[in-house]
Amino acid sequence: MNKSIQLDSLQLGVCYYPEQWSDSLWEDDFKRMKDMNLSHIRIGEFAWSIFEPQEGVYDFDLFDRVLDLAHQYGLKVIMGTPTATPPAWLTQKYPEVLNATIEGVTYQHGMRRHYNYSSPKYQELCANITRQMANHFKDHPAIIGWQIDNELNCEVSEFYAEADHIAFRQWVQERYHTLEALNQAWGTVFWSQTYTDWNQVYLPRLTTAHSPNPHLVLDEKRFISDNTIAFARIQADILREIAPHHWITTNGLFGHLDSHALTEEMLDFFSYDSYPQFSTIFGSDEPKPLLDRKWSQNLSVVRNISNNFCIMEQQAGPGGWVNRMNMPAPRPGQLRLWTYQSVLHGADLVMYFRWRTATFGTEIYWHGLNDYHNQPNRRIQEASQVGQEFVAIGDKIAGTTYQADIAIVKDYDNDWDGEYDIWHGPLTGKSINAWFKQLQYQHIPTDIIYLRKQTLAELQQYKVLIYPHAAIMSEQTATLLTQYVEAGGTLILGARTGYKELSGHCRMAPMPGPVASLCGISVADFTSITGNAQVPGLRWQHNNHHMAQVAELFNDILQVNEDDVEVLATYTSSYYEDAPALTQRLYGKGKVLYYGAAFHEDVVDELLSILEISSPVADWLEVPEQVEIGIRQNEQHQYIFLLNYSDQEASIQIKQQRTDVLIDTLIEGTTTIPAYGVMILQ
Amino acid sequence: MNKSIQLDSLQLGVCYYPEQWSDSLWEDDFKRMKDMNLSHIRIGEFAWSIFEPQEGVYDFDLFDRVLDLAHQYGLKVIMGTPTATPPAWLTQKYPEVLNATIEGVTYQHGMRRHYNYSSPKYQELCANITRQMANHFKDHPAIIGWQIDNELNCEVSEFYAEADHIAFRQWVQERYHTLEALNQAWGTVFWSQTYTDWNQVYLPRLTTAHSPNPHLVLDEKRFISDNTIAFARIQADILREIAPHHWITTNGLFGHLDSHALTEEMLDFFSYDSYPQFSTIFGSDEPKPLLDRKWSQNLSVVRNISNNFCIMEQQAGPGGWVNRMNMPAPRPGQLRLWTYQSVLHGADLVMYFRWRTATFGTEIYWHGLNDYHNQPNRRIQEASQVGQEFVAIGDKIAGTTYQADIAIVKDYDNDWDGEYDIWHGPLTGKSINAWFKQLQYQHIPTDIIYLRKQTLAELQQYKVLIYPHAAIMSEQTATLLTQYVEAGGTLILGARTGYKELSGHCRMAPMPGPVASLCGISVADFTSITGNAQVPGLRWQHNNHHMAQVAELFNDILQVNEDDVEVLATYTSSYYEDAPALTQRLYGKGKVLYYGAAFHEDVVDELLSILEISSPVADWLEVPEQVEIGIRQNEQHQYIFLLNYSDQEASIQIKQQRTDVLIDTLIEGTTTIPAYGVMILQ
Amino acid sequence: MNKSIQLDSLQLGVCYYPEQWSDSLWEDDFKRMKDMNLSHIRIGEFAWSIFEPQEGVYDFDLFDRVLDLAHQYGLKVIMGTPTATPPAWLTQKYPEVLNATIEGVTYQHGMRRHYNYSSPKYQELCANITRQMANHFKDHPAIIGWQIDNELNCEVSEFYAEADHIAFRQWVQERYHTLEALNQAWGTVFWSQTYTDWNQVYLPRLTTAHSPNPHLVLDEKRFISDNTIAFARIQADILREIAPHHWITTNGLFGHLDSHALTEEMLDFFSYDSYPQFSTIFGSDEPKPLLDRKWSQNLSVVRNISNNFCIMEQQAGPGGWVNRMNMPAPRPGQLRLWTYQSVLHGADLVMYFRWRTATFGTEIYWHGLNDYHNQPNRRIQEASQVGQEFVAIGDKIAGTTYQADIAIVKDYDNDWDGEYDIWHGPLTGKSINAWFKQLQYQHIPTDIIYLRKQTLAELQQYKVLIYPHAAIMSEQTATLLTQYVEAGGTLILGARTGYKELSGHCRMAPMPGPVASLCGISVADFTSITGNAQVPGLRWQHNNHHMAQVAELFNDILQVNEDDVEVLATYTSSYYEDAPALTQRLYGKGKVLYYGAAFHEDVVDELLSILEISSPVADWLEVPEQVEIGIRQNEQHQYIFLLNYSDQEASIQIKQQRTDVLIDTLIEGTTTIPAYGVMILQ
Repeated sequence: MNKSIQLDSLQLGVCYYPEQWSDSLWEDDFKRMKDMNLSHIRIGEFAWSIFEPQEGVYDFDLFDRVLDLAHQYGLKVIMGTPTATPPAWLTQKYPEVLNATIEGVTYQHGMRRHYNYSSPKYQELCANITRQMANHFKDHPAIIGWQIDNELNCEVSEFYAEADHIAFRQWVQERYHTLEALNQAWGTVFWSQTYTDWNQVYLPRLTTAHSPNPHLVLDEKRFISDNTIAFARIQADILREIAPHHWITTNGLFGHLDSHALTEEMLDFFSYDSYPQFSTIFGSDEPKPLLDRKWSQNLSVVRNISNNFCIMEQQAGPGGWVNRMNMPAPRPGQLRLWTYQSVLHGADLVMYFRWRTATFGTEIYWHGLNDYHNQPNRRIQEASQVGQEFVAIGDKIAGTTYQADIAIVKDYDNDWDGEYDIWHGPLTGKSINAWFKQLQYQHIPTDIIYLRKQTLAELQQYKVLIYPHAAIMSEQTATLLTQYVEAGGTLILGARTGYKELSGHCRMAPMPGPVASLCGISVADFTSITGNAQVPGLRWQHNNHHMAQVAELFNDILQVNEDDVEVLATYTSSYYEDAPALTQRLYGKGKVLYYGAAFHEDVVDELLSILEISSPVADWLEVPEQVEIGIRQNEQHQYIFLLNYSDQEASIQIKQQRTDVLIDTLIEGTTTIPAYGVMILQ
Repeated sequence: MNKSIQLDSLQLGVCYYPEQWSDSLWEDDFKRMKDMNLSHIRIGEFAWSIFEPQEGVYDFDLFDRVLDLAHQYGLKVIMGTPTATPPAWLTQKYPEVLNATIEGVTYQHGMRRHYNYSSPKYQELCANITRQMANHFKDHPAIIGWQIDNELNCEVSEFYAEADHIAFRQWVQERYHTLEALNQAWGTVFWSQTYTDWNQVYLPRLTTAHSPNPHLVLDEKRFISDNTIAFARIQADILREIAPHHWITTNGLFGHLDSHALTEEMLDFFSYDSYPQFSTIFGSDEPKPLLDRKWSQNLSVVRNISNNFCIMEQQAGPGGWVNRMNMPAPRPGQLRLWTYQSVLHGADLVMYFRWRTATFGTEIYWHGLNDYHNQPNRRIQEASQVGQEFVAIGDKIAGTTYQADIAIVKDYDNDWDGEYDIWHGPLTGKSINAWFKQLQYQHIPTDIIYLRKQTLAELQQYKVLIYPHAAIMSEQTATLLTQYVEAGGTLILGARTGYKELSGHCRMAPMPGPVASLCGISVADFTSITGNAQVPGLRWQHNNHHMAQVAELFNDILQVNEDDVEVLATYTSSYYEDAPALTQRLYGKGKVLYYGAAFHEDVVDELLSILEISSPVADWLEVPEQVEIGIRQNEQHQYIFLLNYSDQEASIQIKQQRTDVLIDTLIEGTTTIPAYGVMILQ
Repeated sequence: MNKSIQLDSLQLGVCYYPEQWSDSLWEDDFKRMKDMNLSHIRIGEFAWSIFEPQEGVYDFDLFDRVLDLAHQYGLKVIMGTPTATPPAWLTQKYPEVLNATIEGVTYQHGMRRHYNYSSPKYQELCANITRQMANHFKDHPAIIGWQIDNELNCEVSEFYAEADHIAFRQWVQERYHTLEALNQAWGTVFWSQTYTDWNQVYLPRLTTAHSPNPHLVLDEKRFISDNTIAFARIQADILREIAPHHWITTNGLFGHLDSHALTEEMLDFFSYDSYPQFSTIFGSDEPKPLLDRKWSQNLSVVRNISNNFCIMEQQAGPGGWVNRMNMPAPRPGQLRLWTYQSVLHGADLVMYFRWRTATFGTEIYWHGLNDYHNQPNRRIQEASQVGQEFVAIGDKIAGTTYQADIAIVKDYDNDWDGEYDIWHGPLTGKSINAWFKQLQYQHIPTDIIYLRKQTLAELQQYKVLIYPHAAIMSEQTATLLTQYVEAGGTLILGARTGYKELSGHCRMAPMPGPVASLCGISVADFTSITGNAQVPGLRWQHNNHHMAQVAELFNDILQVNEDDVEVLATYTSSYYEDAPALTQRLYGKGKVLYYGAAFHEDVVDELLSILEISSPVADWLEVPEQVEIGIRQNEQHQYIFLLNYSDQEASIQIKQQRTDVLIDTLIEGTTTIPAYGVMILQ
């Protein structure tokens, strides 16, 4: 059971930066928040130079006044530790705390997150400020919890300061104990890279062809994650000690960090910063992209960490920095839609970012609810509507959780290895995107789970597991998956499964390695579909249908080794025309499918049809593709969310009488959801 | 009144590098120049290692011989100070004079302009060589003036040597006096960037996400400009002191330099290096690009600095470096055309670059008039023709100035801020390009003026001012513009006007800030048209015409606040369909227009039609689009230039009898201008 | 006569890395090699840390055991010196041996080839390990020869360590003796770059605009080549001294290295690593690309160094690194096809790379003959077939050499100058590609020769020489070429010929400089066809045919100076429409053609037709374009290779009875070669 935020009702809040505004504005700000039913604020996370203007000199006056005023208006406060933005005096005096590029160029003062986690001095200074703040604020009645640092590993998730090399060396020693073990794990006999002294070991540095040892690169990611967690632990331990009555969280879902472990080890629950408008500027050119709806995929990962969580920053307007990322304005309705997107996936506390757009600094175009001019606008109006709705229905929804029978499976080792390894990483991105998109369009709620130390019982809550391209797979994982199938589960695997051990070494065994016997097949031949290689099609054996150019990125040419393996599809071109591309085997009470390529959207659709996987509301609800369907429920109640991501209204048909929760009215028959509209049925 | 070159007749000249050739060639070179009516040469600007082969050892023999010979052939000489190319001994001994990248990597000897302006040692060495040269050459009868350095801020216009950081720190102290003021100006409370010691202040250095503080970045540009001017002043002061009878200029129009201030403070007039063939290799893919004709835009800026100026380097052949910028050959006629393009816009002295193509070094493909082989060619022939024409008509044209009733308005603050700020910078580029292009094609002579400290009277010489996207606008500027409209002017503004103060902070007021009351509108909502946002069209209210996809880059959705505001056009799509996009208000004796987007060429055309702005020669002259029309005049005479930029001849109709000045013949009726041809009518 | 490998029969081998595998696998590996008729293995070249695990401590036990076992199975062993991969202890202790970027950032341990050739310490350490290995292994009966280092100048062919700057300074002093000569050669008077102290001289470092002095850049390449050769010589001298009974080679054909000189000075023959599948990922988008067949061009260069050579690494499967270069799998038949491609062009010993795919390290996707799983696969099958064929026919083919009547001429100076000089380098690439491609498609065997110190007699073995764009050309070369034509040869020259001297200075003479009088023409005008310049067509005078848009990249507009010059084609557009583009002059017993542009494929075809150059087998053999035709012969026998690069079978017609050598059967009439098939006729 994962760790969740505990709230009696859905709550709304906002991020607030009192230090950036005249104090004459504060009271009006708080009054208006209250009027809008914003009950929470987050403050403090970028205010180190306010809290500690000189080394060892502390000044909490400004925030004391803010807290008193907030409390006066009944606002609950989340206090951020300010360690994402070390002051100028700090980096001037202790330049060893700064991060550096792989070439060794130091990142300097002037942005944020320019420090490294490894410097003992920075750890000490962060412990100091955290202890000072905890001692000072622990008894203020407005404060309910803490955010550690801010967006760990945002902007930069690689660290090459001298202190990082030293910390890595120590981590490596603790992991491998002997140089022999290290040399074995990193395969250093290749190209004469053998280490004979621990001091020869570094994080990657500049190498010819920018191609460091791949096993080192994988361990680098593991180290960064452990090191980030160790850095956060320093603060968590202090806060637990001094303010045990407050909860602790942190925000974000960034690279090279096992957020599951982080949460498990020290947080009360996980928080996420949701900016779906990034989809407009980093949007995909694929056909029918999910765009902002793709954030449901991120939220599904968050949900796998904390069933009920906090959105610490919910996009409240067009985003952008002065020099990067200029997003168009969210369309009318979208702020509210995105708020309910967060809620559907488990958010019980949603904090808008931010109250008012900054008038100076790098983020003057990261628009908050209020414009520079501080006068009413359509964004304030939308947030107000959500505030009223939360008051009306929040107690029903809070604490209910998302319901899914199917799960896409991921794990950190393959995520991290696949960043560098272009022979499997890109397959995972392509396939998970295709699966998530088609499940969305077919209104099939889906979990995304990270494989960690799950029990068989935990996996068995899902009828279907899709684990597309787990190049790295341990024997234990293979055993667990085999048990899952035996017990009745459906397991779907894709190309390149199982050829790597945890070290990233390749197994001296036919692919798919430890699940070959489960699948009853092996990979007889293979080719990447790159360069001038043409993408083959598939011929489906059950209906002889030819699907052109769908077997993308990589082709395992399969050899059937067991009689009870059924070939579902064959390739239709290249030298392996007619060879098996997709197999299914009934095994125990369940079944396992192996597909030799990356999953194309059309292949997903065909598999959903063959496996008879459909929407749980299909019998009483008809909605167009543009609407996301999801369910939050507890033992008593079920709430079906209908989120319309289109700029066109959606015509829907409700075949059983239901309650439209937001307007508390019975509803049945044909009706519409407006563009960017939300409906919750009970 | 700006500072201009004073000549009785148009003059032609050429850049010459005697140090690069056998001295046996000099006399023949000078003789041929004389024969071609080239009256001026520029020499010396890259010859530091000739003048001072070792530190403190001076040798002027080579140039003395050149000067004597030049004088013998009646050539007038412009002497360049050689400070753009410090010798190897200098940078070897004083590496602190070298410039560096933002990451701190030093630029080394081996190209040019590898020094910084801030090093006291470099300033001292430059003062020395300037003083030595001034003393030595001041009385030579051939010399008429000086060029300081060469192309200040070409190649590199950012400076990150240690000396630059120190100079910037001093500049900042002089500008802000207190750290409080600095922190306020740069908004350092954002992200805890507060400075508590002047020594924490640096020019931008490497930051995470390559995103330094935007106010620092704006001040960086201001500092670079001031610092460049200060560097030039050292030489100007010495030359004025020692050779007060010579004029002083410098050449080029490069980044991060207020060339107006530079000229005003120390030059006699400004000079420009005109290479229109760059348009062939950095040419735009836009429909109907101006190509080489676009250099008229640059020349218009130069004209705003000096009504009559010098072209210190006029392209004389295909340009290119060994490893970059290989330009096709100018077509027959183009050298002459470009010479008259310069003259039309105010050049009274035109120097070709260069006499003979270098046979070694980086610029062996920057072709001069003569080829390597030194034998007659078509470029020599064209220059000779121009030489003869200048002799014939030069006294009439010299001293006359360009005439325009309309001006495009720019300013340095917005230029510099817009380099980094992608939320307004790109709009300016797009709009000025569209305005200039359509005004060219409609044969409407146009000035480009930089807003500095103009008086109302100075602005009133224009019937129309187009100031497209002045994000930064002071209250004083707004007042001046309001007075301009009240007094009868037509002012055209575009999206994003006026939301920033001079510091780059955003105003806590509705846009367009200080001109909102003048325009009678405010910006109710806005969106950038980026990423997947579709470009809306416009519906023109006067004729209900729909213009598709023209409201580019950004959309201010306007709210009309005054009854006398007329909506000229509305948007035709997105959530703000039918909202006002373009308004006009009659105010005082004038009118002001506000357009919520960047200006598309079609929008410009429609506005010219609505505002009844047309060519001043429309009543007696018909010419096709391909011909630029411009007027040089004085109180007595008016010369109408017709420049044909096309490789096709232009058919024109002259409805009043005129004099064809170049052939001194009366002309009327239908005639043609050949491809790349020139006609001047009086 | 160049240096060749001396073998009585074609031999097959494989690269083997015993240190990467359990020794329990060795015997089975060798047994299987033997069964497959693989007679040679290469070992040791990346095993420095095995041979010398600590400085001065040597351990040859592992390789002794391998050698004994190899000898037991009759395998002949090529031993590699391991200097391409210095151990971690070495670079830790002696960081001065590391290479660096032009900005001075050091390449670190963790890849390969991270060292520089100039460090005295590295030279000493390489001499030590080579001497130790030579002494230890010299008498082992399995060893037949040595490979020096591995792929000299692969990955990085530029060197900027401190030691390199010092070595370059010394090289420059030896070349120029005086600073005056150096300054003259590098044209340093341009931009005041004059050196007054040898210590001011460096290899290129960071300069503004990334544009160092072009003459320095040319000399840099010459230095790198000399320096690489000097580095190799240290090892060659030691091996010659200690193991005079072994042959010496090295592998690869990489940048900035005169492989002809290298071979001539110290090797017994040259070796090449052939990976034709690179064509699938770095493939050209041109129409009808040669793809893997283009490797015949590389092999032709190799052949010009050693008529009979070794393929030290023949691609044996899909190639790729973890993070780069993922190639699709070679198609069935392609491994065998590529093996015969190597043989056709002169390889008598072909070593596959590698025996078994690595299971760890950067090259886990550089697939060997065996897969990770070590079980039979189609690649093993193909290699086995080749092994049997070599046994059957190898003694006939070995020692025969490739036969061609036509040669494409290159030289190192223009190769190296053209890398930096975009005004001639790109022309050469385009033209040689077009010539080689059309000669291939027309089945005309062609040599590629590097112009070095050839005698007239050596050139006269060719009826036709194509020397497309020799910008740099000495008077001696011009004289030799003139003699070649006088004596009856046909010489084809292209745009930009002869305007540069060996220093890279431009001649003060009309182009084409020293061959202008031979050609009877000069270049009256010229333009690069870049930017917005349109590509003109040609009108052929003999048939008035118009060929559109073929005169690419550059246009010399020719002036005919001699009566006996015939204009073969004129330009069809731009201002030089109808001007001569291509001329021919009968001169002595031969003829010379000068073409003013880069050679387009269609122009090559027309020239082949005009010059009546056709396939030597045209009278008795008809094959489609997809088949490469080549001939290996000695005084007694001639073997015609037919290589089908297509995935479609080729229908051919044999009009004279011949022997199909591979199946030892008489053959005549119409037959087919399968997809990727090979036929050898006698």
